Amino acid sequence: MDNFEFRCPTKIIFGAGSIEKIKNEIPHDKKILITYGGGSIRKNGVLKQVKEALNGFNYSEFGGIEPNPKFETLMDAVTMVKEGGYDFLLAVGGGSVLDGTKFIAAASKFEGDPWDILAKGAQINDALELADVITLPATGSEMNCGAVISRISTKEKFAFMSEKVYPKFSIIDPQTTFSLPEKQTVNGIVDTFTHVMEQYATYDVDTPLQDQWALGIIKTLLEEGPKVLKDPQNYNARANIFWCATCGLNYWISLGAVQDWSTHMIGHELTALYGLDHGETLAIILPSLWRIMKKDKMDKLAKMAIEVYGANEFLPKSLLADITIKKTEKFFHKIGRKTKLKEYNINPKEAAVEIKKRFNQRGTILGERGNITPDVAYEIVVNA
Amino acid sequence: MDNFEFRCPTKIIFGAGSIEKIKNEIPHDKKILITYGGGSIRKNGVLKQVKEALNGFNYSEFGGIEPNPKFETLMDAVTMVKEGGYDFLLAVGGGSVLDGTKFIAAASKFEGDPWDILAKGAQINDALELADVITLPATGSEMNCGAVISRISTKEKFAFMSEKVYPKFSIIDPQTTFSLPEKQTVNGIVDTFTHVMEQYATYDVDTPLQDQWALGIIKTLLEEGPKVLKDPQNYNARANIFWCATCGLNYWISLGAVQDWSTHMIGHELTALYGLDHGETLAIILPSLWRIMKKDKMDKLAKMAIEVYGANEFLPKSLLADITIKKTEKFFHKIGRKTKLKEYNINPKEAAVEIKKRFNQRGTILGERGNITPDVAYEIVVNA
Repeated sequence: MDNFEFRCPTKIIFGAGSIEKIKNEIPHDKKILITYGGGSIRKNGVLKQVKEALNGFNYSEFGGIEPNPKFETLMDAVTMVKEGGYDFLLAVGGGSVLDGTKFIAAASKFEGDPWDILAKGAQINDALELADVITLPATGSEMNCGAVISRISTKEKFAFMSEKVYPKFSIIDPQTTFSLPEKQTVNGIVDTFTHVMEQYATYDVDTPLQDQWALGIIKTLLEEGPKVLKDPQNYNARANIFWCATCGLNYWISLGAVQDWSTHMIGHELTALYGLDHGETLAIILPSLWRIMKKDKMDKLAKMAIEVYGANEFLPKSLLADITIKKTEKFFHKIGRKTKLKEYNINPKEAAVEIKKRFNQRGTILGERGNITPDVAYEIVVNA
Repeated sequence: MDNFEFRCPTKIIFGAGSIEKIKNEIPHDKKILITYGGGSIRKNGVLKQVKEALNGFNYSEFGGIEPNPKFETLMDAVTMVKEGGYDFLLAVGGGSVLDGTKFIAAASKFEGDPWDILAKGAQINDALELADVITLPATGSEMNCGAVISRISTKEKFAFMSEKVYPKFSIIDPQTTFSLPEKQTVNGIVDTFTHVMEQYATYDVDTPLQDQWALGIIKTLLEEGPKVLKDPQNYNARANIFWCATCGLNYWISLGAVQDWSTHMIGHELTALYGLDHGETLAIILPSLWRIMKKDKMDKLAKMAIEVYGANEFLPKSLLADITIKKTEKFFHKIGRKTKLKEYNINPKEAAVEIKKRFNQRGTILGERGNITPDVAYEIVVNA
């Protein structure tokens, strides 16, 4: 096991009826800015519940944060925060709203050009306090300190991390997901699945407990995913899927283990270039990346075949790895997710050429062993 | 899944060579009291490493905290803290030292008789800051806010919990466990095993992920336990066992699930009455409690037989539960732990009579369904 340090100060408030507890968690002297997206939280009553909980508090609203939240939009919020003197951000919505709000929190206190936070990884020394009512089980943003932000003008998508943007609290009421469109439910399952794989399917540094936990999330997704698709109002299944999403990226499964994240990095380019949903890009890239990088990921993929897919432990490792790749594709198909670029009318070669060019320009090298060069990324995309 | 709230502010610093990082974590203006036990940390060099890390800091020492830390001893430390004006406690040692230090932290700021914290569950509104270098994988105290304290004069053992006594940081260097006596290594494995079972082997509220994680710890203990006993200097096995112990009681596996803790409560009485090690009492009580309460715990014990012990899922549940009980006893025996009172020359009937009397006096009712009355506790002990 590798050495590690870990501290997550976020308070999780989980369960039906939790939204009203906001009022116990925010000091009354705060000037609150509620941030949200396109308005689904109006339709499903979540915004109303939030406002009821904030009765007597001093708050305003900033709506319109996009899926794949855009730097340009978020900078409008930063202006509003500075001019209005807000000192507490409450994100209400999915991971994009929360990621955007993390950026607003950091950018509002940043000296210099906030784009440097994304493009240059500039250090964040301070941020506004933030919290969230998270309504989409997917990104795990509710219990981590990372965020992914896009820029329209340059068609780029960047991630940043800072301990300063851990939510103070996150409210997870699985009932808020009853009304999710099926596509978003599926995206969330694929996103969680891939988060876990980015942290599991690398090389082995003898972390049996972390492996068990990672695969425990996968097993739960395989069981509970079809349940929520069949019956969107199944509370326990919704709760289990949400808790899988949170635990898929709160770092618990990868402490002391080796991480990858190249499926995400390549997927981000597909979103930036073609506007595909994040969850769509992952289902396209993951199986192709595993095929190209199979030798490097063999041990873990083979272990997964035995533990998750019930394969015979005496089969050759290479065959076991193939079983994991095929069964994973089969699961994505089962929950209604395509796994090929062509199915989205995207020319794989064109995409591969463009992504290789971008990675060459930026000097991007990916993978847990640092061996996914732009040329290898080309192979992954062209075969996706 | 049940509703829950969770926040753990403790920073974990894990791995070989971590002790020197103390110096980055404690502000230089603190007046530190180092607390420890009987002196094993002198022999194995841990205290020396701690002092080197604290070079330039203002600190003193309080040694002599016993296994099953005693109220009377801890109150001496409270006097020292108050007279000396210490404002940071650094526990160096096992769970008993840390539990005792949590009590010192709370009692030093408590108005009134600190015994009320234990005997009456008095609320703790404030506590001294504390942190630890934990050297025994067992109690999980390094990442939770509970503690267990004994009182000599009344032969009693009580637990308390308060968010105020979460360690600020916990340093886990698995190398500190290389020199553990085998008996303590075994106690730690049994303690961790039982912690997990207190949180898993109850009734099912549809928490498949939590179940996977709980059983993931058990699988890891079964694999790694024999490794550390065979080769005490196997770093990775020591690291894995330590991380199992921490995760066995940092609440991660039981969020939203149902807990029991009656094995511990009955075991505490055996320690108070006969001076048995905590780990010894658990291996005695757990299997007997499972036999007596089998009907209530059937579903989870059966699931464990399939997931952990490889039993055939088509066997009757009752038989599967029996398999778990027998295989668990077998594992305890394999790592050198007795499972019967008689093997410690204790008369089961005598013990059962005394414990029933105490539970009747205190009105103690145990179990996740509140159906372990003093009479049922008698049955559990007399058959142990």
